[in-house]
Amino acid sequence: MNLILLSPEEIQHDRLACLRDPRRLRHLKEVHRARVGDSLTLGVAGGGIGRGELTLLSDDEARFSFDGLDMPPPPPLPVHLVLALPRPRMLARSLEHVTAMGVKQITLLHTRRVEKSYWQSPELDPAKIREHLVLGLEQARDTQLPEVHLAKGFRPFADERLPTLLEGRRGLMAHPGMTQACPTGLSEPTVLLVGPEGGFIPHEVERLLAAGCEGIHLGARILRVETAVVALLARLF
Amino acid sequence: MNLILLSPEEIQHDRLACLRDPRRLRHLKEVHRARVGDSLTLGVAGGGIGRGELTLLSDDEARFSFDGLDMPPPPPLPVHLVLALPRPRMLARSLEHVTAMGVKQITLLHTRRVEKSYWQSPELDPAKIREHLVLGLEQARDTQLPEVHLAKGFRPFADERLPTLLEGRRGLMAHPGMTQACPTGLSEPTVLLVGPEGGFIPHEVERLLAAGCEGIHLGARILRVETAVVALLARLF
Repeated sequence: MNLILLSPEEIQHDRLACLRDPRRLRHLKEVHRARVGDSLTLGVAGGGIGRGELTLLSDDEARFSFDGLDMPPPPPLPVHLVLALPRPRMLARSLEHVTAMGVKQITLLHTRRVEKSYWQSPELDPAKIREHLVLGLEQARDTQLPEVHLAKGFRPFADERLPTLLEGRRGLMAHPGMTQACPTGLSEPTVLLVGPEGGFIPHEVERLLAAGCEGIHLGARILRVETAVVALLARLF
Repeated sequence: MNLILLSPEEIQHDRLACLRDPRRLRHLKEVHRARVGDSLTLGVAGGGIGRGELTLLSDDEARFSFDGLDMPPPPPLPVHLVLALPRPRMLARSLEHVTAMGVKQITLLHTRRVEKSYWQSPELDPAKIREHLVLGLEQARDTQLPEVHLAKGFRPFADERLPTLLEGRRGLMAHPGMTQACPTGLSEPTVLLVGPEGGFIPHEVERLLAAGCEGIHLGARILRVETAVVALLARLF
């Protein structure tokens, strides 16, 4: 928790914040070992960042006073990440990783090699997803929550949603065996598609290429989805 | 498990392999859903890679026949990774990530902000470490096990070990706030040093810079160690 992310309702008048949830209170005490008088980094969800002074820390409350939260959050990555739905624990970690790296648009996609049961996972509950996004923001000192979209059918996604996404964006499909190595140093708007464990099936690869995506690879090594996504983002942008 | 990593003693005469450990048997059945006659990728620890045919799969044994395991494993990264010892669960995942990416030399280092209790973790048991390395190799279809060294004192490491490591290698210390952005496209031998959660302390930074390391940063976002290490390796090489 390198930033304490405040929801607007946790801010009282302009210069005071008060938080009561057990997770952050515990983190302040056990990890930060915070004491009254300490200066910590605060941010408002969707807004600015600044320093605040801890003025009270009890069993059920922490209070901060601050002058202004007017520094901008770090810039986002210009990417819409389309990720074949990973298994639940890997989904949780992947959401944290990519949020920390600055992804703001995430679509979780069904493909042939995604186990159907994954769509029933409690990790897909919006509150659960939000928890992981918030952990990623707190880690990277960001305040802008990503949007997560669910695309439970590959064909409707490829036929209807993808053409719209690709308007004005470069489409990159990461898939082992493609001929183009992952490019570097991009700044243009991009859609990055990453398949499931086991990869896209040949028909899906054809469909995505036909829609205008370029196939790219990360080398001879096959990486786990959570590793591959971080490596791709780090190399692309 | 994109490759079944065989130890030399699992190979009987030149063309037959037999494995009996429950983890891989379960994986073959439950994840691969393998059947007799299937062709799978095999590799010998420290040696070559090839395809083998599953000739028997019972509750306590799997047998493969193969013609030759003579393809080379994917090339390693030219890096010695010096990682401040992370907390146990993050250590486990980081070892898997960096092994999958091709790191062959890993030193786990004590620094001021490493909790001393981490050095007592069962995750540091050589057999436990090996488990995670093997998972990384199986993922990336590699056969060359990394070497893991423990450096339980920062000062002896900085005074004695680091100067030797830096002979003929470029030293890069990843630390937030350094002025140089992480370089890309390296192929020269490199030592990459990554601090703990909370970073190196100023004295350690000074010491590493004085030893000849260049300070590099990954941008304004502070990433978790396991994310940062993957991002650094993906960008550097």
